Amino acid sequence: MKSHRQELWFETSSRRSLINITPQVEKCLRDSGIREGLCLVNAMHITASVFINDDESGLHQDFEKWLEKLAPEKPHNQYRHNGVEDNADAHLKRTIMGREVVCW
Amino acid sequence: MKSHRQELWFETSSRRSLINITPQVEKCLRDSGIREGLCLVNAMHITASVFINDDESGLHQDFEKWLEKLAPEKPHNQYRHNGVEDNADAHLKRTIMGREVVCW
Amino acid sequence: MKSHRQELWFETSSRRSLINITPQVEKCLRDSGIREGLCLVNAMHITASVFINDDESGLHQDFEKWLEKLAPEKPHNQYRHNGVEDNADAHLKRTIMGREVVCW
Repeated sequence: MKSHRQELWFETSSRRSLINITPQVEKCLRDSGIREGLCLVNAMHITASVFINDDESGLHQDFEKWLEKLAPEKPHNQYRHNGVEDNADAHLKRTIMGREVVCW
Repeated sequence: MKSHRQELWFETSSRRSLINITPQVEKCLRDSGIREGLCLVNAMHITASVFINDDESGLHQDFEKWLEKLAPEKPHNQYRHNGVEDNADAHLKRTIMGREVVCW
Repeated sequence: MKSHRQELWFETSSRRSLINITPQVEKCLRDSGIREGLCLVNAMHITASVFINDDESGLHQDFEKWLEKLAPEKPHNQYRHNGVEDNADAHLKRTIMGREVVCW
């Protein structure tokens, strides 16, 4: 079996950010030379998510508002984890959004 | 590595619908002739979901009610995406339910 | 293609429990002798979840409280499925947490 592994790094300037990484993933696929098989794209940080959806700015705002409703960032002291870090909400939000995508 | 890819199409008569596609997936597996390996079943639409759970009508009603609570369809104007389409809630609901299943 | 399948069994003493199974998964990988490829770890029960996150007790309490908010166990009669079983909330909670993890 042929396999190919590649790391992609992203930096965001805000606490939360949606980045369309499709071009980078397509480049990885071209670099791999693999024509057929499974492609796993997963986040290596447990407060980050990889998912497939519309790259539409209205929908992005809906996701932001919705995630804040389901797992609000503040008040910080509503979460026990925030004694350790300050990002408990990000762990929960990423759980909703999913860690990984597998495609063919 | 042996691989097999097959498309399944489904039409629903209502806005939301739960369809048990296990028989179709089992047929794909038989058609493939593959006895061992990973099976990816994923939705090709970003408002559709593939998941594994009980095919029990009470639970299906619970899912429907629960998804409406977490990501209500109406009022439509609560979502920015609905200026583009009218299905923002479906994008959110499918995020909860998951896009894909990988099994052995 | 080389493949390896192994079953892990867990028993919990409480209705809900978070178990770090990383050591067992690492042992499976060693037992398999496979050095490169995809590793699927999935729950075989539809009220159980496999996910990757911090093994930090504060975060675990946050998950518990959060899942109870999103999909409360009680009152039992709020769910139709509970005429069949008494675990409708567990089906919903596991949907949030995810069924499976695929890693490289």
